[in-house]
Amino acid sequence: MTTAMELDKKDEGVSPRRPQTTGPAVPIFIVILLATAAIAQQKPFPSVILEERPSFPMSAAMERLYDEWNPHEDRGNELYSNFKYTELNGFKRETNVSRRDPTKVIKVDDIYHVWYTGRRSECPPVGLQNATDTKPGTDWDLADIWHATSKDGWNWIEDKQPAVRRPPKPERGFRSICTPGVLVWKGKYYLYFQAYSPMVGGQVWCPVRVAFADSPYGPWTHHPEPAVVPSPPGSWGNIKINDPCPVVHKGKILIYYKGAPIERGPEYVLRMQGVAFSDNPLGPFEASKLNPVINSGHETCMFPFKDGVAALVALDGPEKNTIQWSPDGENFKVMSMIQVPPVAPGPYCPDALSDSGDGRGFTWGLCHINPDGGGAANESILARFDCDLSLDVNREIFKRNNLRFNEQTYFQKGVALPPFIKQQIIRERKTLDRETIR
Amino acid sequence: MTTAMELDKKDEGVSPRRPQTTGPAVPIFIVILLATAAIAQQKPFPSVILEERPSFPMSAAMERLYDEWNPHEDRGNELYSNFKYTELNGFKRETNVSRRDPTKVIKVDDIYHVWYTGRRSECPPVGLQNATDTKPGTDWDLADIWHATSKDGWNWIEDKQPAVRRPPKPERGFRSICTPGVLVWKGKYYLYFQAYSPMVGGQVWCPVRVAFADSPYGPWTHHPEPAVVPSPPGSWGNIKINDPCPVVHKGKILIYYKGAPIERGPEYVLRMQGVAFSDNPLGPFEASKLNPVINSGHETCMFPFKDGVAALVALDGPEKNTIQWSPDGENFKVMSMIQVPPVAPGPYCPDALSDSGDGRGFTWGLCHINPDGGGAANESILARFDCDLSLDVNREIFKRNNLRFNEQTYFQKGVALPPFIKQQIIRERKTLDRETIR
Repeated sequence: MTTAMELDKKDEGVSPRRPQTTGPAVPIFIVILLATAAIAQQKPFPSVILEERPSFPMSAAMERLYDEWNPHEDRGNELYSNFKYTELNGFKRETNVSRRDPTKVIKVDDIYHVWYTGRRSECPPVGLQNATDTKPGTDWDLADIWHATSKDGWNWIEDKQPAVRRPPKPERGFRSICTPGVLVWKGKYYLYFQAYSPMVGGQVWCPVRVAFADSPYGPWTHHPEPAVVPSPPGSWGNIKINDPCPVVHKGKILIYYKGAPIERGPEYVLRMQGVAFSDNPLGPFEASKLNPVINSGHETCMFPFKDGVAALVALDGPEKNTIQWSPDGENFKVMSMIQVPPVAPGPYCPDALSDSGDGRGFTWGLCHINPDGGGAANESILARFDCDLSLDVNREIFKRNNLRFNEQTYFQKGVALPPFIKQQIIRERKTLDRETIR
Repeated sequence: MTTAMELDKKDEGVSPRRPQTTGPAVPIFIVILLATAAIAQQKPFPSVILEERPSFPMSAAMERLYDEWNPHEDRGNELYSNFKYTELNGFKRETNVSRRDPTKVIKVDDIYHVWYTGRRSECPPVGLQNATDTKPGTDWDLADIWHATSKDGWNWIEDKQPAVRRPPKPERGFRSICTPGVLVWKGKYYLYFQAYSPMVGGQVWCPVRVAFADSPYGPWTHHPEPAVVPSPPGSWGNIKINDPCPVVHKGKILIYYKGAPIERGPEYVLRMQGVAFSDNPLGPFEASKLNPVINSGHETCMFPFKDGVAALVALDGPEKNTIQWSPDGENFKVMSMIQVPPVAPGPYCPDALSDSGDGRGFTWGLCHINPDGGGAANESILARFDCDLSLDVNREIFKRNNLRFNEQTYFQKGVALPPFIKQQIIRERKTLDRETIR
């Protein structure tokens, strides 16, 4: 198999297969010798990677390599991975059927379980202005929480009915329930989800509700009180709590979420992520005083890693497409920069809810894709991603860089230059494009 | 026009059009009032963006927003852009014709000029083991430097012959000359390029040569001496100097380049970027003592910005897909994280060579694409990218985040899970995938 990542421009077809090192492959005395020589004569930086931060003068970039990253770059970074995608079997693609926002995958009695936002409606989303009681405004309008199982993680069987249905009007969530997160706590199962009423969208108060069951097969009971509520007026998450993502850490249940304010405009916060804590899976959950704890991202994806909490942050903000880590769940640091991350990932993370204090990470999960690259206006599909964010494997292919794309990637809608911008550029060219100064 | 970036999940179809702010859109006294209230009562972080760093306790992420980024995130960052692509007219796609690695675009007497690696060979690249005097080993083997002109930046006319041909055997570069960079200096034109001999690839000593002319139309004369040579044995760039990228800064000619060592293996530096200085365009160029100055990236792309030098760093390393800036050309800081950057970009940057001390950035350029997503083994095409890395325009569409991809992007070769890894994952599943701890 020859992938784009194996062939390396200017490396003339020599495959840069570099195993993730577990220790120096050259004898340490040679490294010390070279380092000593470099220090003595201020020679150029050596070709062998110095394991220890050299003491001779370096550029700011090389200082960062030692201080923020590590000398073996991404291939020595346990919180770096690329992501490789596979279509799933068992989720039949049908007109006006959308599946998105999978929970974490859990494995119970040798069966994998996942829940997700499911919409089966009479027509595609028509936009908020045209939505009716039966016409969805968006992809996640008029949705319920669906459940599917798998014996191998590749072939899935979807239940014939929703696992958790919208509660009756006028209860919170009667319009749509979506973006579930799953918790297993003291032998019981909990699903957290956004509860929209009376109407998805616009800017309506949207808390997180919770349903519980004794088995992953249900039946599920709606808890009457909301679990996580928007923050007070004037604050960053005052209208909607999106994408609840439960993790258990140091004896507490942590629910991460994306917050949105009712205010709109360039002078307001767009989206950030916070966390709320509780001892009780039914709540109430108390927001961290340090919120927001993530300054970027779109969907939430947190998981225990070693004795802290890691986060996959995608799509939005200055720290888009990074993996971050925090010792306390509240103070995150950027650990790596990633490409083409899964959208709305739900990793299979067996210790996400165990509070082991030794999170092992994950190697796969489910995510969603908008087949035409659209955002809100179309059906979504579930797909599988594989990666190496696990301390238990060492899959070299996932530690590589130099990911290249085919022609269609650059010229797809959303990446190609749209015609109206091209017209603007042509208009402005004569005044903007000056002669090369020489 | 509706792109994926305009429709925003959870925003329910409300288009998040946010003009790049030039100042606070709410009266400053309201901001101060809210900030004061927040400090007094330790309320949650406000929905209005505080222009000044608040003094109340914040998470590490929010501290970075003020200390490393800016409170308006990417939309307030003049060194952030996304990139939008267009196919070019005039570069006829023909079997066994490859065009790649464009220089910066320059504009002389109202005509845009670009040079690039051009290969016209009897067959596609056959790999280094099978290469002959007429069969290329790689995409950039048996190549010359070609030249094309345009009146509008979209429609191009290619010269009928190479602008700079390989010198005769046994001169350096008789096998292939590639990856040109252009300099205009005191009314003369200079092209810098890699000079391969006797054979592209393997691990052969590859310096940068230079050719000069009185006009962008040539004729070009090879200067006999190499301009930039690999660093001494044992150091990081001891075998090849790739992708020479000239910039003029503070009276000096700076040539940035990617260095590669002859040594291969996980214990050696893979690729980093350095800079060399000279007063004379024909050299010799003296390497910075702080090299490498960029710890990541693949092709070079440096340009003057304000009174410093900026760099677009793509594809490789822990700081892949970032834009960086340096006051002195040697000490770079990460300024933004970007997505789907142009490969081997050659921006139209009218002041790249003027040493104005007030670099204005750029809005477009040429890059190359491997149509099938492959790296070294196939023909490449030139394409145009547009962006907003310019201080002279404010094109909001290029400041957006939330770039989404279509289904084909995830399932293309190189991004989809390859079958052999799938087989490994299936084999390892039973021992690796544990029950969810509950």
